[in-house]
Amino acid sequence: MTTRTVPGDTAVAIAAPDSTTPIPTRWVGPLRISGNAATGEVHVPLATYETPLWPSVARGARISRMVDSGIQATLVDERMTRSVLIEATDAQSAHSAARAIHDRLDELRTLTRTTSRFAELLAVRHEIVGPLLYVRFEFSTGDASGHNMATLAADTLLSHLLARIPDIRYGSISANYCTDKKATAVNGILGRGKNVTTEILIPRQIVADQLRTTAAKVAHLNVTKNLVGTLLAGGIRSANAHYANMLLAFYLATGQDAANIVEGSQGVTYAADRDGDLYFSCTLPNLIVGTIGNGKSLATVEDALDRLGCHSERPVGDNARRLAALTAATVLCGELSLMAAQTNPGELMRTHTRLERTNGAPHAH
Amino acid sequence: MTTRTVPGDTAVAIAAPDSTTPIPTRWVGPLRISGNAATGEVHVPLATYETPLWPSVARGARISRMVDSGIQATLVDERMTRSVLIEATDAQSAHSAARAIHDRLDELRTLTRTTSRFAELLAVRHEIVGPLLYVRFEFSTGDASGHNMATLAADTLLSHLLARIPDIRYGSISANYCTDKKATAVNGILGRGKNVTTEILIPRQIVADQLRTTAAKVAHLNVTKNLVGTLLAGGIRSANAHYANMLLAFYLATGQDAANIVEGSQGVTYAADRDGDLYFSCTLPNLIVGTIGNGKSLATVEDALDRLGCHSERPVGDNARRLAALTAATVLCGELSLMAAQTNPGELMRTHTRLERTNGAPHAH
Amino acid sequence: MTTRTVPGDTAVAIAAPDSTTPIPTRWVGPLRISGNAATGEVHVPLATYETPLWPSVARGARISRMVDSGIQATLVDERMTRSVLIEATDAQSAHSAARAIHDRLDELRTLTRTTSRFAELLAVRHEIVGPLLYVRFEFSTGDASGHNMATLAADTLLSHLLARIPDIRYGSISANYCTDKKATAVNGILGRGKNVTTEILIPRQIVADQLRTTAAKVAHLNVTKNLVGTLLAGGIRSANAHYANMLLAFYLATGQDAANIVEGSQGVTYAADRDGDLYFSCTLPNLIVGTIGNGKSLATVEDALDRLGCHSERPVGDNARRLAALTAATVLCGELSLMAAQTNPGELMRTHTRLERTNGAPHAH
Amino acid sequence: MTTRTVPGDTAVAIAAPDSTTPIPTRWVGPLRISGNAATGEVHVPLATYETPLWPSVARGARISRMVDSGIQATLVDERMTRSVLIEATDAQSAHSAARAIHDRLDELRTLTRTTSRFAELLAVRHEIVGPLLYVRFEFSTGDASGHNMATLAADTLLSHLLARIPDIRYGSISANYCTDKKATAVNGILGRGKNVTTEILIPRQIVADQLRTTAAKVAHLNVTKNLVGTLLAGGIRSANAHYANMLLAFYLATGQDAANIVEGSQGVTYAADRDGDLYFSCTLPNLIVGTIGNGKSLATVEDALDRLGCHSERPVGDNARRLAALTAATVLCGELSLMAAQTNPGELMRTHTRLERTNGAPHAH
Repeated sequence: MTTRTVPGDTAVAIAAPDSTTPIPTRWVGPLRISGNAATGEVHVPLATYETPLWPSVARGARISRMVDSGIQATLVDERMTRSVLIEATDAQSAHSAARAIHDRLDELRTLTRTTSRFAELLAVRHEIVGPLLYVRFEFSTGDASGHNMATLAADTLLSHLLARIPDIRYGSISANYCTDKKATAVNGILGRGKNVTTEILIPRQIVADQLRTTAAKVAHLNVTKNLVGTLLAGGIRSANAHYANMLLAFYLATGQDAANIVEGSQGVTYAADRDGDLYFSCTLPNLIVGTIGNGKSLATVEDALDRLGCHSERPVGDNARRLAALTAATVLCGELSLMAAQTNPGELMRTHTRLERTNGAPHAH
Repeated sequence: MTTRTVPGDTAVAIAAPDSTTPIPTRWVGPLRISGNAATGEVHVPLATYETPLWPSVARGARISRMVDSGIQATLVDERMTRSVLIEATDAQSAHSAARAIHDRLDELRTLTRTTSRFAELLAVRHEIVGPLLYVRFEFSTGDASGHNMATLAADTLLSHLLARIPDIRYGSISANYCTDKKATAVNGILGRGKNVTTEILIPRQIVADQLRTTAAKVAHLNVTKNLVGTLLAGGIRSANAHYANMLLAFYLATGQDAANIVEGSQGVTYAADRDGDLYFSCTLPNLIVGTIGNGKSLATVEDALDRLGCHSERPVGDNARRLAALTAATVLCGELSLMAAQTNPGELMRTHTRLERTNGAPHAH
Repeated sequence: MTTRTVPGDTAVAIAAPDSTTPIPTRWVGPLRISGNAATGEVHVPLATYETPLWPSVARGARISRMVDSGIQATLVDERMTRSVLIEATDAQSAHSAARAIHDRLDELRTLTRTTSRFAELLAVRHEIVGPLLYVRFEFSTGDASGHNMATLAADTLLSHLLARIPDIRYGSISANYCTDKKATAVNGILGRGKNVTTEILIPRQIVADQLRTTAAKVAHLNVTKNLVGTLLAGGIRSANAHYANMLLAFYLATGQDAANIVEGSQGVTYAADRDGDLYFSCTLPNLIVGTIGNGKSLATVEDALDRLGCHSERPVGDNARRLAALTAATVLCGELSLMAAQTNPGELMRTHTRLERTNGAPHAH
Repeated sequence: MTTRTVPGDTAVAIAAPDSTTPIPTRWVGPLRISGNAATGEVHVPLATYETPLWPSVARGARISRMVDSGIQATLVDERMTRSVLIEATDAQSAHSAARAIHDRLDELRTLTRTTSRFAELLAVRHEIVGPLLYVRFEFSTGDASGHNMATLAADTLLSHLLARIPDIRYGSISANYCTDKKATAVNGILGRGKNVTTEILIPRQIVADQLRTTAAKVAHLNVTKNLVGTLLAGGIRSANAHYANMLLAFYLATGQDAANIVEGSQGVTYAADRDGDLYFSCTLPNLIVGTIGNGKSLATVEDALDRLGCHSERPVGDNARRLAALTAATVLCGELSLMAAQTNPGELMRTHTRLERTNGAPHAH
């Protein structure tokens, strides 16, 4: 093994001046939305190299406007998490430490508030493997997605605990039990990010005219493709056609950390034939979105959040909740459109060939 | 249920003129690479709102230049897939149909070649659930990532089979057994995209000076955080700290379909203490990258691929292979940097606070 | 740490004389079966402490006799596997070793035959993680389930390879990529054990009279409970109500290694409403069963295999195939019965209370 | 479709008189145990067709007696669960129903106590997918494993809620979110059964003499085989060599419902080289065991529980806790023995061949 001398003494070597990568972006819609976090008709922005996504989402949005209540979005939970690793000598002392942590819950709550005026400690959960103690802190983080707020709070809580509980030592500030940007089961089960279900009931005639299919066909395809197909593939807590596409485009256009599409795209499409009408829903338990924080001060992003109505005077957290609802509604539009297309043999490729020329076609996923 | 009349008669309603979302981008490095797909020193572009990623990757790149062979990248497999769903009446006829498909393999190979001069059918696998027959086609697709090429070929093969095999009917052009943009086990096990391992052996002194840690600490953290932590979280075929971050930034800067970070980020970090030196590796079995196709003709992207040396005259597929190796090397740089930082209590937040002011800090993941 | 002297010098200390644990056993049925591995009417034995299982399976068996073709069983694949771990210095040499192994395939096939007259090497697959090379051997093993045959063959192949391929060394004779007695995705995807689908089409009237439910209700419950419910729970490649119960009881009664219910119980129930008739199927991709080998020479077991017609003069492998088909048919009987019961509020507890007194009731699972 | 008339009018057709399947059983040990649920030296019974398991566990037990504290067992949690499915019209009403359920928590607690004097409602969690509301009840169940107690309580709670909360209806008494006898992530994350870690610190010399290996080798094999190997296989929340074997044999011998080895065998082996001494631990989060209830009144089982000291006068629950600790200690003995054997090339087959003749050898898993 030969080592080489590397010129330069800066800790980081950044080779090129600042620049940007421009991602093609369109606003589509408006989509019609109702529910406990957003109401009205709203255009949504999609930044993507996969331009066929635009007409696909637009078709769903159009259908949402044909139904009185549009897409109903229900936000059912929200929290941001960070897990830390504490090491003990054995399981017995890890168990004692865990109890000591739970005994100090009030103290930890108070301490959390000193790290940010928006951070609030909601709960602490833990798990023990041999001498390893995994502690998962759950916070509310206002209108921020909360990555940094949660990490700062966790760092403070961890130092505090290490100084006070005997026989334990630092393991890691992040122990992958959070879990950030990985597809796991824990986020859906314990909650991380905003948990939103969007749903719509589409009259039979609109299903036929606009989607060229039937409720029965869509419900059946959802079972065979999204549920059974994903199961066979060895998927984890997920059953949908292409949530990742809509999430990526929406996240980029609104300044989100789009690497969070990894867990964000774990969600469940559920469809039912209700006497010929199509009930169609998208459940997204892990939307990590914020209206303040990293990336939000860029002009394009600020403008996008303004246009979405997510920079308004509202109680703390309501702007982010609105954004989450709009994210999930956008996902539904694209999911509905693709699922309908795939019920018909050849439609996907025909549409694709036609739209390639005019810049846009639903892809298979 | 009241339905509403929606004005306008276009199939798709796109509300805004074309525009772009500019993503902050820097070229960092160069990183030093060797192996069967790329060699030399190369700067790599990262488009991201999470600017602390730049110095994090740059630190890893700097270390790669201190070792003679740099980061060794080994590409061990490549293929693109599309699964289709065929419906039969029962398992018995699904089984007969599966055998009939395998009997026609040569015919299907020939047919595939008519759909694109780069598409080659490599293998067909199938699985039966009751009357449902899931067929997974595997293709080579030259320098393209191959989404469209594989879908077009699968569409052609499916029509061909439906017309010739009795007692079966169309189920879906995509059956989620492909699997595209979902975190599953099948892609790693059967292969989808490019399978690349990057690795480096870092002398003890460099570990101490540049990473402020030891080989033993990094290897231990890899076990407790990446392996056990992800396991506890209920992860699937994945054990790493933050592959998703590097992949997103690299994919966006090079015109890839970044929704493929969902499966791309499923990979395994493996580290070992070799007499004080640090062996560190990142195995990424599902890199979906291409140097031609959708998004590659945009000026920024073209320029990026040029600078990366991925638009050169080479045998078909070699440009894409080089790009995959560079992707994986970039992932290693960022992974190494964060893992080292997390071995030290408080380092992450200290670096973060310092770099926040100067635009850049490693985040916890 | 104080160590203690332990009296006795035998390598193993076995404290008690030989004895047995008697498991309550009944033969239920007969069930009616057809298909490519077994036909006719057959009683099946169930050894279990959970005696309500008997009437539950018996109800399914009774329904199978009401339909002409009974339960159709289709065996679609069979193989036994063992994975070994080989360690190299880096991914590059692991990759070279993998290619060297595949180049020696014919040699390995010949060598396998020397280890047992029933063992045949079907395929070799591998996967690389950093310097680690996981090699999965697939064998056919005649009428044996094949644990020992596969291990012996793998041991021989491994020694052979380690002596001939440079720069690699022994890692493990079993690397958990087999996978034996663990719930994973690999067994379903690549195959391990016998892959059998059982299915039945039950006329509407029988559904009403015998199961007190409707096809629509069962199909719906299968989606909400088995597919979506298991998905939410973070299940892996599995969607059923209680395969494990029937497998355990059948495996114990027939001398199988019942720890293989862990992967055996990973399977998929698929049901459909066909114009009021109920299509119901159980797909079990990982049945590890044999009619010869460990445990098969005990008198009770021998008798059970005799009565099942699995000790007859048949081509090699056909007795084990018949046993697999009977296993899967038994699973269907119990699954059908419980699923039907759960469509009706309160039925489970009512039946339970009634049968507790008479020794038998379907449990919830 | 032709239907057939089936003779006989009994609801269940049971063909054979009562009998039993005798499973070969030995008591091995004693193993030495300490911790918060059991202390002393105890022989443990193993009922299995795989007789090599006996000397394998016996070797581990012997080592436990050489260390002062023997195997430390720490019980960190216990609860039994049942999930029910409630159907609403849409997510909004499912969300309202969920809140109504949580508002009635005190009422549900009181109601639970009316169903059994041992049942106590500990917590209620829920999850929403479209219009589907999955509610997971967590109970303590005294010395019973609690399947029936939890089902009866859940049945009562469900009826109560359906009668009081508007706009919801019965979905299922069990919704696979419990999860019983399936390998999922939810049980480990939220808890189901008894969560026990067993661990031992084995002096270097004993590792060398008794296990013919080193701490470093065992720790390394645990990473490559149990952690990375299972990960590659697409395992879920599990990393061990063969927990299923010990669990099956111990469960059968003590009258447990051995189908619960499916989730019981999901656990994590963690080993470390502590200056040449071997730290070895088995974490089993989902042990479903009881000392009263189904199967416990059979003579052999009663005798086994007596000999294990699990039928003593103790505070409610302590007998079952002792049983769980003994289960986990038995698992450690067998896991340690096999892991050590697999560090040495050829040892497994050599031991096997020798012990086949004398009835016993560790198998590969």
